[in-house]
Amino acid sequence: MTTADDFSSAFLSKPGQITSKLGSLVTLANVAKFPALNTFGVSMARVDYAEGGLNPPHIHPRGSELLYLEKGSLYVGFITTENKLFAKTIKQGELFLFPKGLVHFQLNVGEGPAVGIAALTSQNPGTSQVARGLFASMPAIESVVLSKAFQIGEGEVKHLRDVIAKS
Amino acid sequence: MTTADDFSSAFLSKPGQITSKLGSLVTLANVAKFPALNTFGVSMARVDYAEGGLNPPHIHPRGSELLYLEKGSLYVGFITTENKLFAKTIKQGELFLFPKGLVHFQLNVGEGPAVGIAALTSQNPGTSQVARGLFASMPAIESVVLSKAFQIGEGEVKHLRDVIAKS
Amino acid sequence: MTTADDFSSAFLSKPGQITSKLGSLVTLANVAKFPALNTFGVSMARVDYAEGGLNPPHIHPRGSELLYLEKGSLYVGFITTENKLFAKTIKQGELFLFPKGLVHFQLNVGEGPAVGIAALTSQNPGTSQVARGLFASMPAIESVVLSKAFQIGEGEVKHLRDVIAKS
Amino acid sequence: MTTADDFSSAFLSKPGQITSKLGSLVTLANVAKFPALNTFGVSMARVDYAEGGLNPPHIHPRGSELLYLEKGSLYVGFITTENKLFAKTIKQGELFLFPKGLVHFQLNVGEGPAVGIAALTSQNPGTSQVARGLFASMPAIESVVLSKAFQIGEGEVKHLRDVIAKS
Amino acid sequence: MTTADDFSSAFLSKPGQITSKLGSLVTLANVAKFPALNTFGVSMARVDYAEGGLNPPHIHPRGSELLYLEKGSLYVGFITTENKLFAKTIKQGELFLFPKGLVHFQLNVGEGPAVGIAALTSQNPGTSQVARGLFASMPAIESVVLSKAFQIGEGEVKHLRDVIAKS
Amino acid sequence: MTTADDFSSAFLSKPGQITSKLGSLVTLANVAKFPALNTFGVSMARVDYAEGGLNPPHIHPRGSELLYLEKGSLYVGFITTENKLFAKTIKQGELFLFPKGLVHFQLNVGEGPAVGIAALTSQNPGTSQVARGLFASMPAIESVVLSKAFQIGEGEVKHLRDVIAKS
Repeated sequence: MTTADDFSSAFLSKPGQITSKLGSLVTLANVAKFPALNTFGVSMARVDYAEGGLNPPHIHPRGSELLYLEKGSLYVGFITTENKLFAKTIKQGELFLFPKGLVHFQLNVGEGPAVGIAALTSQNPGTSQVARGLFASMPAIESVVLSKAFQIGEGEVKHLRDVIAKS
Repeated sequence: MTTADDFSSAFLSKPGQITSKLGSLVTLANVAKFPALNTFGVSMARVDYAEGGLNPPHIHPRGSELLYLEKGSLYVGFITTENKLFAKTIKQGELFLFPKGLVHFQLNVGEGPAVGIAALTSQNPGTSQVARGLFASMPAIESVVLSKAFQIGEGEVKHLRDVIAKS
Repeated sequence: MTTADDFSSAFLSKPGQITSKLGSLVTLANVAKFPALNTFGVSMARVDYAEGGLNPPHIHPRGSELLYLEKGSLYVGFITTENKLFAKTIKQGELFLFPKGLVHFQLNVGEGPAVGIAALTSQNPGTSQVARGLFASMPAIESVVLSKAFQIGEGEVKHLRDVIAKS
Repeated sequence: MTTADDFSSAFLSKPGQITSKLGSLVTLANVAKFPALNTFGVSMARVDYAEGGLNPPHIHPRGSELLYLEKGSLYVGFITTENKLFAKTIKQGELFLFPKGLVHFQLNVGEGPAVGIAALTSQNPGTSQVARGLFASMPAIESVVLSKAFQIGEGEVKHLRDVIAKS
Repeated sequence: MTTADDFSSAFLSKPGQITSKLGSLVTLANVAKFPALNTFGVSMARVDYAEGGLNPPHIHPRGSELLYLEKGSLYVGFITTENKLFAKTIKQGELFLFPKGLVHFQLNVGEGPAVGIAALTSQNPGTSQVARGLFASMPAIESVVLSKAFQIGEGEVKHLRDVIAKS
Repeated sequence: MTTADDFSSAFLSKPGQITSKLGSLVTLANVAKFPALNTFGVSMARVDYAEGGLNPPHIHPRGSELLYLEKGSLYVGFITTENKLFAKTIKQGELFLFPKGLVHFQLNVGEGPAVGIAALTSQNPGTSQVARGLFASMPAIESVVLSKAFQIGEGEVKHLRDVIAKS
């Protein structure tokens, strides 16, 4: 039987342990983690940033993101389809909007950790981390695609694959 | 010219002063306050609750609400179209989902103030406070409607109009 | 096998017997009663009003309503999110639009019974009767919520619960 | 200033005079006639049928239709994309659903006039009468298209153009 | 397991054999033929036209069509809800847009065969061929409907049924 | 006055001249180039590939893409939100579906030029080329973001900026 407990979730209530070299951790309460969201077209994430931590350039293919900075100071930005960068530093309590499907990132530029609460306009927004997607997908993209796209040699492609896979 | 500043807002960064008798204050960054939200189908609100404060029964006709409790402890609930109440007490860091168009409320049941951050699935969700809508609309609803609906006399209707208008 | 009969319904063809103290009866051909409506985003209701009968303040959380008054004369209205009342008396053959998610009502102000045919913009619009939702939900809302919202004492809350439950 | 009058319309309250040879008249309260419907995704029509009158095969390209038969008896039907006819006779008070974009019709098969009230799932559903569209468009379709499609000679195409234009 | 093969289809890669008297053949890669289209709201068709071939007046009830003429020359058109014909001859490499739910056609007016590639804005757009729908549905529409709509005698209705069923 | 010419476009009828180092050219008939597409939710592109030419990894934030390969042979692929690569070689006449918002690419692996016709599920799908977006946006992203994301030194970031800007 459905109860009020089904409409609540403690999934974002505790910060996780940041183990990534990049210094950030995203905890996403999407429909898989919080089934009540089904058909509601919204989900919520908690993002923890270590000092200097980066939530690297990524895309949400199915949702825009409205970020509320609960604590800290972030350099945030996105790149438009006209290849313009819209970026700035936001402070505690401020909001920033990342439109659906655009590459965006956040970097902790304050002292100590930062915490963001993000609303996403889909119950299953998905995330595609750009560098990992290109250089550490399973299976790998043919080298020639990356070599041409980044104008680098095959050796450099191999190097990037190694380091990005470990990041 | 559009800049990154257009995609950010400090509208929720400061708690407002709670002057309502009910002991709560909603600050809503909707498209009127934060124009970048236009066409994005999302808005965000900060709700401040004094100790014992109530965000009284209300409806968002154009959006569901996903509430993140930044601080404190709230008794929250909504009433379904089958007239069931789904209510519980949530704690700091927990989420609660209020489906679009259903009557819902939050009451601060912890010690000291509470703060919630709410994502709404519309850039212009709107709010209809139920008691005020019925008893303190401009102009007033014909008394007979309220008298019948609440099974009370005309004198009681007049009394409720007086006290609710001042709340 | 699907036949033409699946696309028709006699669900609204007969007036039901009005037994409510409020003097009205809503018969709704939604997707549960008329399965062909599935995915079509529309349903239809017949509303019968005794002389002086009231369809009390209620909300359809998932649909707007376009009412055609087949017979009689009604005082109708809704309350906006700016707390304005839009109300008037309509006559036989006239239409009135009630926007999605707003509290609205109809009162029979003519002689004899009235009949309305309402189109709703959802196959499952749902109805939340406001007074019953607040004072006669199952289980009950904590008294303090109603006491504060309506600025009344606990005794008055109890009284309203009693009379509304029987209406 | 917007008032309650903007949300009501008397456009369907009077039967029009049926002058068509086909014996029917459609009066449609769409957004052009009833501006409050804008953004609400619904419109309503009144269809008057003389005895034996036909609302000839037509399409609403932008809306499904849910018909309530206020008075009389109609032979109604639509043709699916699998070229199946779903047709039957409906009686006073019954509903029939015509899915969006499918060719459909109604024929008065009772004694005396009939009246239908139709909800359409668009504020601007549009109507394309099939015979008139093919044989009496402005300008005319090249004859060879009609000659091939209906497997008739050019003379027959000319004849149909003449009689349908006058219907 | 889903693989890249699920996202590709060779369904349109070969011209089919045109056997219709009308001289055209539509091969549609909709969701039934190419399941990956599910939830994507798009499908694609290849239309082969013999010299002089006609894709007869028809409707896609659930999708607009954007046609790219890969080869040949076509007289194309559609009829609006104001009964206007918008028609012209297009040449190789040109595009033409047919709005959802409107009756439209294409006729090969060049030398030799023609080939079109059509994108449709639904994974299941459906097709209703107008002449066949009216005169060769299963079961048949009552003759009086067609007799009145086309202003012809019952004998002519019977004749049209015969010839259209064989086309 | 609107005419049939407004519903057609010759914008894709001629191959453009490929001048990019990457060996490909996309010509997109979106709503800006073909205004009739407004509100129709579809656009079409012609992609010309020189031998060995690459349409580099990119995203359409507002539309899925269904590609029809008119001529040639392409190695095509996309990366999912689970970081899986779905890639294969397609041949003349085959279709491939690229879901909205996912990074994807095409490489001409046949002899001589190739030509693709792509339907996109938006009148304004937009394109974000990933390598250019990250390394050649205006203004530039702070180096530390790229340095961390790709696990490379600042010198390497500078080098990539130089070569990608010229590609």
